[in-house]
Amino acid sequence: MNNPDLDRLFNPESFAMIGASSKPGKWGSIILINILKANFLGKVYPINPTVKSILGIKCYPKVADVPGPIDVAMITTPAKTVSALIDECGKKGIPNVIVVTSDFSESGPEGTRMEKEIVEKAQSYGIHIVGPNTMGIFSAKTNLHALMPMVMPQYGGISMFSQSGNVGVQMLDYGVKENVGFDKFVSSGNEGDLNCVDYLKYFAQDDDTKVIMGYVEGVDAATDFLPVARKISREKPIIIMKGGRTNVGTKAAASHSGSMAGSARINRAAFQQAGIVSTNTSLELIDTVKAFANYPLPKGKRVGIVTRGGGWGVLAADACEEAGLEVPALSDELIKEMNKLLPDYWSRDNPVDLVASIAGDPMPTCLSLLAEWEGIDAIIALGAGFRSYAYNYSEEVKGPKELLEIITFLSEYFKEGTKKPDQNLELIGKLVKTTGKPIISVSIGSEYSQRQFFEDYEIISFPTPERAVRVLKHMCDYRRFLNSPAE
Amino acid sequence: MNNPDLDRLFNPESFAMIGASSKPGKWGSIILINILKANFLGKVYPINPTVKSILGIKCYPKVADVPGPIDVAMITTPAKTVSALIDECGKKGIPNVIVVTSDFSESGPEGTRMEKEIVEKAQSYGIHIVGPNTMGIFSAKTNLHALMPMVMPQYGGISMFSQSGNVGVQMLDYGVKENVGFDKFVSSGNEGDLNCVDYLKYFAQDDDTKVIMGYVEGVDAATDFLPVARKISREKPIIIMKGGRTNVGTKAAASHSGSMAGSARINRAAFQQAGIVSTNTSLELIDTVKAFANYPLPKGKRVGIVTRGGGWGVLAADACEEAGLEVPALSDELIKEMNKLLPDYWSRDNPVDLVASIAGDPMPTCLSLLAEWEGIDAIIALGAGFRSYAYNYSEEVKGPKELLEIITFLSEYFKEGTKKPDQNLELIGKLVKTTGKPIISVSIGSEYSQRQFFEDYEIISFPTPERAVRVLKHMCDYRRFLNSPAE
Repeated sequence: MNNPDLDRLFNPESFAMIGASSKPGKWGSIILINILKANFLGKVYPINPTVKSILGIKCYPKVADVPGPIDVAMITTPAKTVSALIDECGKKGIPNVIVVTSDFSESGPEGTRMEKEIVEKAQSYGIHIVGPNTMGIFSAKTNLHALMPMVMPQYGGISMFSQSGNVGVQMLDYGVKENVGFDKFVSSGNEGDLNCVDYLKYFAQDDDTKVIMGYVEGVDAATDFLPVARKISREKPIIIMKGGRTNVGTKAAASHSGSMAGSARINRAAFQQAGIVSTNTSLELIDTVKAFANYPLPKGKRVGIVTRGGGWGVLAADACEEAGLEVPALSDELIKEMNKLLPDYWSRDNPVDLVASIAGDPMPTCLSLLAEWEGIDAIIALGAGFRSYAYNYSEEVKGPKELLEIITFLSEYFKEGTKKPDQNLELIGKLVKTTGKPIISVSIGSEYSQRQFFEDYEIISFPTPERAVRVLKHMCDYRRFLNSPAE
Repeated sequence: MNNPDLDRLFNPESFAMIGASSKPGKWGSIILINILKANFLGKVYPINPTVKSILGIKCYPKVADVPGPIDVAMITTPAKTVSALIDECGKKGIPNVIVVTSDFSESGPEGTRMEKEIVEKAQSYGIHIVGPNTMGIFSAKTNLHALMPMVMPQYGGISMFSQSGNVGVQMLDYGVKENVGFDKFVSSGNEGDLNCVDYLKYFAQDDDTKVIMGYVEGVDAATDFLPVARKISREKPIIIMKGGRTNVGTKAAASHSGSMAGSARINRAAFQQAGIVSTNTSLELIDTVKAFANYPLPKGKRVGIVTRGGGWGVLAADACEEAGLEVPALSDELIKEMNKLLPDYWSRDNPVDLVASIAGDPMPTCLSLLAEWEGIDAIIALGAGFRSYAYNYSEEVKGPKELLEIITFLSEYFKEGTKKPDQNLELIGKLVKTTGKPIISVSIGSEYSQRQFFEDYEIISFPTPERAVRVLKHMCDYRRFLNSPAE
């Protein structure tokens, strides 16, 4: 039952919704709405004996009544009805059943008994079960949004499994805000049958998945998650957030997912050995997958910092050193080149402080010089998008005619900002491609939203230097793992 | 010169802008626009010998030509002109001069000489100088936005000094996004005359300042910042971010502000002894001042967690334990009360997992029970605003008539969400006031923006549990400092 072919599960041509409903308060309604709203590319068969049609779609009384084959059935009806429905699915030859229904092993001994019963029955039919107690699955290729929550994920190269439905779907939701795109998502629920190791293996061999992401609670030495991950992580990054890192968290996890999570220290070391990129906070998780999915890895841990503001350079340098990254001094040659651009009293050091020079902007040349210098592996660019910001501000100002006349100087002053695309941001996108070095922008002032940075220029931007450093640290650690000899 | 009366500086009735201009590229134009745009309540006197009026305001050739008294003059003209202008200001009897002009001590020996000259001259006239090389000041009471950058701060009870203009004004900008309000702000520049200790003392005795916030680079045992802070922090919270915590950061800070910052460890310990709340990242800084300015301090470090999703409870519990906060087990009595509301199989423990019970929402009663229980000092409420979110989503959905009909069930289902105000969020605001315990909301799903949470319900909300925990940790540490015997 391990490592099954899950292609039909994630990319079904036909999907039966058992418990489809038009009644308020039924998950069978909400999920159906989500599926239709997302324009699922396959056929949908609502199954409900009490109505003839739902949303204008013909409704079938039973699974057996559906004319064609069914790749996936989803069940949302009460726990006591599930066992008989598995029989119906088995007789119909359905290979995958997603059991959204709760009140199984998470609810006590009777639920555990029922879960065992439906899983054994499913296995006797050769059915794979997702869940029970899952919040559903998502797949970009077929526009399959078979999810309980009301989130429409951004599409991209990340695939995620989650031992918490809520944490998982909030990551999809963060992704919408932060422009982080997903290819597949599965809430693994109670893992009565298919578990995280199955999804991990499937994502590993799936060409559409560039980065594997996971939230786990019950992963420790007792499962084969780590040995499997250790092999995969040489080929594809695996980025995990672990819940249950502490005593009180472990107790909560045991109550939540029934997991027997080990201590934080054991997990962290074991994750590291397996080449897993491990994050502790949810924001760190979404930032990290975004960078891994869209940027090249740095070759080493030497970071160049260019900044429009001295204080931000100080904070970025502090964050780098605290994270174990290097901020190397500049070469004499580089200093000589930058002397031509910057005021006499510039720092002649890394961070390169542009000392508020905006007119005749030295940012693009300094960025290029630094990116092309062999002495650094990655760049943090603080305030690169400032021109666009200043221009947008000047556009927003309203006032008496004379005030407006003066204000036009702003758009003159930041003239390059008036052009779209912003030359500095476009340059960063280009340098990332030509030098193969990750250049992370940090916005000073409101500038663009983080979304726009990525959408307009394909560059990654964070609102604070600390978030940029945290992500670079993970990229450097993973690069070091890849450079280490395989066992 | 220490601890001068800075009331006239921050709340002037008259403000002279020396170097006011209508020419592109002059800071004297940008700052003047900012002052006018913000509707400064005092009189503005542009000073410029080459024009008769700017923006319809009469322009004076020299300071001496201004008819009335001047509380504050701001200088933006080149460094070599400043000394003579100080003479003009001195003769006019102006008590405060803000020198925006750069090219002073930050630029080398000649700049250092000029800075010494203007400061000595100013002191001979009894003039206080802000800067030189400052980005300006802000004060809510008089709508004084004498700032270089294009930011219009939110008003509130926080006053900030910053040894980096850029870091400072970005905090004002974060404040706009995160609904963090400021009363006063000063970019201290090179601190040729007035320095952070002066501003700290002034904010300490200023009734409009509820929380003191600072970004510092050059604060160590050699200044009297720490002994002064130690007295003030018993009365008013001081929340500081320190740049130059590491070797490379210290080197950058030395180049930036000329500070000789000590090692990170020495500073952290010294800050802690002085009762200073010390943050390492910029997001942490803005989150922390927001909580201190708007919420009561917890009496101890026992945290109750209520969550709509098990995984989020696990992560919140992990974050608490990692931060040294307690997540105590529930009392038998509390469990008995909650048994009436929650499914049989609920965790009977803290975190209180509502197990996806939304219909007949147990959130409000569980929140009330927990807040009124003497066993905890603070609460993190995960997903409290979910009803409003669900309702807003249902409102957004567009589709064929039949789809819309079904979708109305969402607004029925989350009926309480249809009413504004949201009952759960309103309850949190009420409980914070009646119990005196901080209850931090964490939004699950998009819900409201963090701004709206505060604007509509006066409650603090963060998008991740880790940010809530980080802030609670600072509040608990500060409470412990207040409870410790004064020396």
